[in-house]
Amino acid sequence: MRKGKLVAFNGSGQPLTLLEHDIPSLGEGEILVRNRYTTLCGSDLHTYCGIRQEACPSVLGHEIVGEIVEIADSHPGTDDNGEALKPGDIITWSIFSSDPQSVFAQEGIPQKGTNLFKYGHAKITKNNAFHGGLAEYCVLRRNTGVLKIPESMPLPIAATLNCAIATVAASLRMAGDLTGKNVVIFGMGLLGIACIAMCREAGASWIGAADIADDRLLHAQHFGANQRINLRQHSEEGTDVLKKQFVKKGVDVVFDMSGSPDAMELGMDILAIGGIAVWVGAVFKNRKVGIDAEKIIRNLHTIKGIHNYNFDDFKYALDFLENSWQKYPFDTVVEQEFELKEAEQAFEYAISHKPLRVGIRI
Amino acid sequence: MRKGKLVAFNGSGQPLTLLEHDIPSLGEGEILVRNRYTTLCGSDLHTYCGIRQEACPSVLGHEIVGEIVEIADSHPGTDDNGEALKPGDIITWSIFSSDPQSVFAQEGIPQKGTNLFKYGHAKITKNNAFHGGLAEYCVLRRNTGVLKIPESMPLPIAATLNCAIATVAASLRMAGDLTGKNVVIFGMGLLGIACIAMCREAGASWIGAADIADDRLLHAQHFGANQRINLRQHSEEGTDVLKKQFVKKGVDVVFDMSGSPDAMELGMDILAIGGIAVWVGAVFKNRKVGIDAEKIIRNLHTIKGIHNYNFDDFKYALDFLENSWQKYPFDTVVEQEFELKEAEQAFEYAISHKPLRVGIRI
Repeated sequence: MRKGKLVAFNGSGQPLTLLEHDIPSLGEGEILVRNRYTTLCGSDLHTYCGIRQEACPSVLGHEIVGEIVEIADSHPGTDDNGEALKPGDIITWSIFSSDPQSVFAQEGIPQKGTNLFKYGHAKITKNNAFHGGLAEYCVLRRNTGVLKIPESMPLPIAATLNCAIATVAASLRMAGDLTGKNVVIFGMGLLGIACIAMCREAGASWIGAADIADDRLLHAQHFGANQRINLRQHSEEGTDVLKKQFVKKGVDVVFDMSGSPDAMELGMDILAIGGIAVWVGAVFKNRKVGIDAEKIIRNLHTIKGIHNYNFDDFKYALDFLENSWQKYPFDTVVEQEFELKEAEQAFEYAISHKPLRVGIRI
Repeated sequence: MRKGKLVAFNGSGQPLTLLEHDIPSLGEGEILVRNRYTTLCGSDLHTYCGIRQEACPSVLGHEIVGEIVEIADSHPGTDDNGEALKPGDIITWSIFSSDPQSVFAQEGIPQKGTNLFKYGHAKITKNNAFHGGLAEYCVLRRNTGVLKIPESMPLPIAATLNCAIATVAASLRMAGDLTGKNVVIFGMGLLGIACIAMCREAGASWIGAADIADDRLLHAQHFGANQRINLRQHSEEGTDVLKKQFVKKGVDVVFDMSGSPDAMELGMDILAIGGIAVWVGAVFKNRKVGIDAEKIIRNLHTIKGIHNYNFDDFKYALDFLENSWQKYPFDTVVEQEFELKEAEQAFEYAISHKPLRVGIRI
């Protein structure tokens, strides 16, 4: 039986362990992938730090790109764009699989479908150990979205597609047509940074970037933000000045990638009549956001929450990256690279240095 | 010069006064209407009680139906459905007029357009006194939506069209397709009651009605609610039982017509994944609504505020009433009638008895 290495997460505060496990033979509709590159997402760091509780021991890492080793005969043999798949192809895959016939999947929310399975979040069992990015292999389950990655796209860029970029794609879908729109994005992690570029490509006319850290705001500027808003120095007067520059006395869309209740509240304050707030970042416990219902009503505001993405968003994310990765400094996103056996150092570096991403070359 | 009577509102706590005023000759695009019937809306009562501050002296009343007396030559001569208008026609009209070229009007929000004028909310001036429902006449300004009322429709029913029914029409537009949906409506005033009937006609499969008053919940049942939810007796356990009856473990849409932060918070608790909350009622100062952003995000919830309506909603409201006023007990909405000179008694009755509506026959 084939064997492969994996890095087991044994709980927050416990050392990661490098193990060898059997690679199972493929089940119905499955694909065996040799992982090539994984980037550590914010939620991996949250789990590592114990801010979020997940099953363990597990294999963390879900922003993954890999090479097809074997395709089960029962797999349709094509990716989500209808392109033929064969061993050797570089692919990425949706962070989840779920029953396509379930009620939420049928309504365009497969990320909440029944029999939901999420890569990088599952417990290691005897027969199922290869389901995360911090491993040499990954077994793709039936009903996982798969996309072929163009050969020209660098692996560290492609790796971010199936979480950060696809989630931003879903956020843009929530916001609707962005042509000519004025937008403010809160939180200049990778989601916020990518959101700048994706809003620009979607036709937004003005994009403000808000964060509490100057270095992240500088990144935002490199990705094309029209204005940097340092929230540490922001005042009510600053809000007034910001709003007055627009015909509608406010912006059309705000995206919250920060998860900060203060930011979400400020976002509502700067929205124009008819404006939309898309909330994405707050995937952890925090104080409630105080909403003035009268203002929401009189200003015809909309708030939309989005978690993960659907298969259309996933394809949109690839289209975007394929067309635009060279137009924006996506090659600066991975600030430090590590090997699989250095996974613990990678986490420690990510936590202490707060880069947009660290990469694991496998 | 022609003269007409009007009831002036002189500020909360001041007596209403019956005055006679000159009827001005018509300006560009205007229509002179002889008011026939006015219903008192909740916001009229709020102004009368001083809960809401409006310019005064003014003419209150904006749920109005009247008879065309004269049409300026410069008026297009047709209503919003393209039907020819002539003196003697019974019509209702949008509670606002605004510049159709302004940015919000162009985006489908004419109720927030520039040069906004609202009937029943304006100050009496020497040349502009007839702009409310508590008067014998009303001068309809240019860019006011106008709809001919079918002869068969009773005036007390038709009068509610241009505020309550049209606002519910806008709320339904916010909610999207209701076919097969499970819905809970909070607040069983006229908006909530009408919302039951309109959701039913729009194809909703199950409708819950929530209020704190049993008599209003009984009304809700007469309008077709599947379940009455008395919020005074509601518990967390009740929420669980309510949610568990649905495949999605929650409802698809909640409408808040109550304006109560408690109700809006409960509404978010009972929404299924992917659900939409439409907020309509909270058009007065109140405590903030506490929103758990993580829940909004993980459940892909949407909150939409809506204030007033646009011209499509206005036409939808007429279509609905025309087809359905006999299918539901709309003839019970006006619980007491008064004459114009009894306007003060009408307000006092409305405040003390809390009927769905009082009517003023003019």
